[in-house]
Amino acid sequence: MIDMNCDLGEGYGRFSVGDDSGIMAFVTSVNIACGFHAGDPVVMRKTVDLAAEAGVSVGAHPGYPDLQGFGRRAMSMDPEEVYAMVQYQIGALTAFTTARGIRLSHVKPHGALYNTAARDPLIAQAIAGAIHALDPGLILYGLAGSALTKAGENAGLKVYHEVFADRSYEEDGALSPRDLSGAVLSESEALDQVRKIIQSGQVRARTGVIIPIKADTICVHGDHPSAIHLAEKVRELLHTLSPLTIKDRRDSYENYSD
Amino acid sequence: MIDMNCDLGEGYGRFSVGDDSGIMAFVTSVNIACGFHAGDPVVMRKTVDLAAEAGVSVGAHPGYPDLQGFGRRAMSMDPEEVYAMVQYQIGALTAFTTARGIRLSHVKPHGALYNTAARDPLIAQAIAGAIHALDPGLILYGLAGSALTKAGENAGLKVYHEVFADRSYEEDGALSPRDLSGAVLSESEALDQVRKIIQSGQVRARTGVIIPIKADTICVHGDHPSAIHLAEKVRELLHTLSPLTIKDRRDSYENYSD
Amino acid sequence: MIDMNCDLGEGYGRFSVGDDSGIMAFVTSVNIACGFHAGDPVVMRKTVDLAAEAGVSVGAHPGYPDLQGFGRRAMSMDPEEVYAMVQYQIGALTAFTTARGIRLSHVKPHGALYNTAARDPLIAQAIAGAIHALDPGLILYGLAGSALTKAGENAGLKVYHEVFADRSYEEDGALSPRDLSGAVLSESEALDQVRKIIQSGQVRARTGVIIPIKADTICVHGDHPSAIHLAEKVRELLHTLSPLTIKDRRDSYENYSD
Amino acid sequence: MIDMNCDLGEGYGRFSVGDDSGIMAFVTSVNIACGFHAGDPVVMRKTVDLAAEAGVSVGAHPGYPDLQGFGRRAMSMDPEEVYAMVQYQIGALTAFTTARGIRLSHVKPHGALYNTAARDPLIAQAIAGAIHALDPGLILYGLAGSALTKAGENAGLKVYHEVFADRSYEEDGALSPRDLSGAVLSESEALDQVRKIIQSGQVRARTGVIIPIKADTICVHGDHPSAIHLAEKVRELLHTLSPLTIKDRRDSYENYSD
Repeated sequence: MIDMNCDLGEGYGRFSVGDDSGIMAFVTSVNIACGFHAGDPVVMRKTVDLAAEAGVSVGAHPGYPDLQGFGRRAMSMDPEEVYAMVQYQIGALTAFTTARGIRLSHVKPHGALYNTAARDPLIAQAIAGAIHALDPGLILYGLAGSALTKAGENAGLKVYHEVFADRSYEEDGALSPRDLSGAVLSESEALDQVRKIIQSGQVRARTGVIIPIKADTICVHGDHPSAIHLAEKVRELLHTLSPLTIKDRRDSYENYSD
Repeated sequence: MIDMNCDLGEGYGRFSVGDDSGIMAFVTSVNIACGFHAGDPVVMRKTVDLAAEAGVSVGAHPGYPDLQGFGRRAMSMDPEEVYAMVQYQIGALTAFTTARGIRLSHVKPHGALYNTAARDPLIAQAIAGAIHALDPGLILYGLAGSALTKAGENAGLKVYHEVFADRSYEEDGALSPRDLSGAVLSESEALDQVRKIIQSGQVRARTGVIIPIKADTICVHGDHPSAIHLAEKVRELLHTLSPLTIKDRRDSYENYSD
Repeated sequence: MIDMNCDLGEGYGRFSVGDDSGIMAFVTSVNIACGFHAGDPVVMRKTVDLAAEAGVSVGAHPGYPDLQGFGRRAMSMDPEEVYAMVQYQIGALTAFTTARGIRLSHVKPHGALYNTAARDPLIAQAIAGAIHALDPGLILYGLAGSALTKAGENAGLKVYHEVFADRSYEEDGALSPRDLSGAVLSESEALDQVRKIIQSGQVRARTGVIIPIKADTICVHGDHPSAIHLAEKVRELLHTLSPLTIKDRRDSYENYSD
Repeated sequence: MIDMNCDLGEGYGRFSVGDDSGIMAFVTSVNIACGFHAGDPVVMRKTVDLAAEAGVSVGAHPGYPDLQGFGRRAMSMDPEEVYAMVQYQIGALTAFTTARGIRLSHVKPHGALYNTAARDPLIAQAIAGAIHALDPGLILYGLAGSALTKAGENAGLKVYHEVFADRSYEEDGALSPRDLSGAVLSESEALDQVRKIIQSGQVRARTGVIIPIKADTICVHGDHPSAIHLAEKVRELLHTLSPLTIKDRRDSYENYSD
């Protein structure tokens, strides 16, 4: 069983990003921006409602306080600052899930915070500790085999190792930096990569070397039509590999499978 | 029985305001800034811890998103924006109370949001509705006899009518604007005002006219030594009027009363 | 001679708004957001470069510090705060015009600041005074016949009375609030309105009453294809009414006129 | 001749830091925060006025966009982003010096931006290039012997190599990180360090090794009474070493020297 997740609610005031409803048909969980790198309170509330209607699992997507950089610029924060910042953002989103009557299911750090936590054990520990102190039932999504998933496991959290359909990997399991040639895969490459991950638990790194990889959830994107198309293809592929491969969607799985 | 409350956690990063621990000995509840007009996540977490140790009731103190203006500049926001903004801030603070293992007890809007809600029924209704949808057990603190307390009562919330020790009133029950002569009372005037409110349920407005006033909680300040001194005097006065006048403090009342 | 102006550079980080280059062919001056309601430093610098290449006059478009509300939510700021805030934003934009080797030509307040200044003489005076103290050669764009244009004239500034192609007017010369029926005109209505303004110095208010109106500059929009189309039509109309009607564009007029 | 500089205008809205007027008597130049890590427009305007009255040279003190972290947390920004951000902040401050009728004399990056620029040639080059493109007459203040001073010299700017009275040095000329033991000097150690720097062009690093150091300006602080006292002592020391050691203050030198 594998989960498909997508980042959502990345607009801010008048500024909108992507078509949040388009991707909803293909994913089983969504990560909602919490106001620091994107997502104002109105956007968050609407996105929670949208996700609740679609019956997908709702997670928090906390990021660095950097709207201009969309949370993609690393900031040298103390673990104590990260700890409080992550709790703050989870709490803020939880207001909207609580008011809507659904449970928050997971937390996935965003952008540069995700990448920093994949490498830096102290930041990873701060994030895992912050989540556990708030609600030990929350699932932590982190880069497969990273310092973050390890910290989550150490903290006693349920952890989802995350893989990416359309991003290439380095030999150490890190994502290839976006500015490297070959870092972003074509649709057919992405589908090949997903097939290999699901069938063999392995991925071919950018250099050609085969490395093992654990996959509990696959990240897809919904911010442009080609991304949504890829998400649809990935979902079809997962279904083809095995109808049991795809995680049940809370209330819409019946309609999907035929 | 009357509650004494104080605004707390109004620092931000390196910027600090007042001595939060000084006032804690004299109040029964505190309102903690939630990051929009003051209070970053680290400050909020520390302030929740401080309040939990002191055994006072902890409330959220949401304000307009205006750090420069300290939330004292009115903004023309839609009720829908206010609704989401208030839930966001309550949720953020709740992360810290939850992690600390205490319950959030109440919500008191801050500054210009408080004043707008005291006059504007739609904004008042948005705030009351936001609180009720999140947790109908939360108490709403609002200006005594205002549109906000009315909206809270209509929404089915428990409401605390709030009075101010050191601020004068207009004949309609509004606080006198700070820039009016006589708007801020001296210590002896403040103590007289508190005594009159407690004993007679009335207050002498700035113009001299006597008006009725309901008082469930008294607001005091802790941001400079003279304010803390006044808080101590108010507490002594309440104790003198009747030992039963002062609300029990959750776990420190025994030490206080002799 | 009449100027055609357009708001530009309204993106922020990853968030983009409209197609800034599309509208550039039809306007003679642009108002560039200065970072408070939209426009980060990178966006501002690129927009100044784009405008310089197009040879249009470059103005500052200062707004309230409210990214979420896009500067469209009024804030109760003191005149002293507005004064400093306007100088700050003009100065920030001037860095990019200076570095590019062009002169800043004008200042047009944005959104709610524009509307507040049209009504409130103290805010209008603060804006006009701030501009004059910085550079008395700057032109102030304000709503035709408003408190802002009057304050500019009193301060000794050159003032452009601004009219809107696609917005209806109230009988007092104010723009009809966007949420009123009939507040936003269709393309044909807009062209009729422009023709009437140019030919007779009058406009038909939303109520049907004819009022006088002064027009030194017409505001058009570039944030969606239909707006750009209207801008093109307005420009054609102005050219038809009289080739001399349209203000010279610094370096592209020759190519435009036939 | 040596300059003495101090960071100033580090308040923000209701949040105040230090006593700006206290230090003014002892320095010859001030670096004013530009709104990103501290300093709102009102504070900037007042601080420029204060500095102009004191007759000290006024410089811009641009920092990372991080009010919570006071600009002390490094952010991974592209050189292009740094370039635009520095021009923006210099421009914003220049509005206030222009309106006051004084010239901006210099630019000193703040906090983490200063430290990053001392090490990273690309960021240093972006800063130097941004300053030079704006006004080649501006002086760049940077850590003595760092990548920043080198980039400034390469760009053709006049550069002030900056030394610190009360901070210890590493053997490579970097400031010792604040969290290392011995990183912050006592008053007598600081005075010894200044004496050695002035008399020999050398400084004893934290490890005991003597390294050469260039000193065009000394940084002192004004944010608490002991810092102001040290500034006074440093100034007396410089005067004792040679009355000609201290740079002329534009209009107050006569009163100071005896």
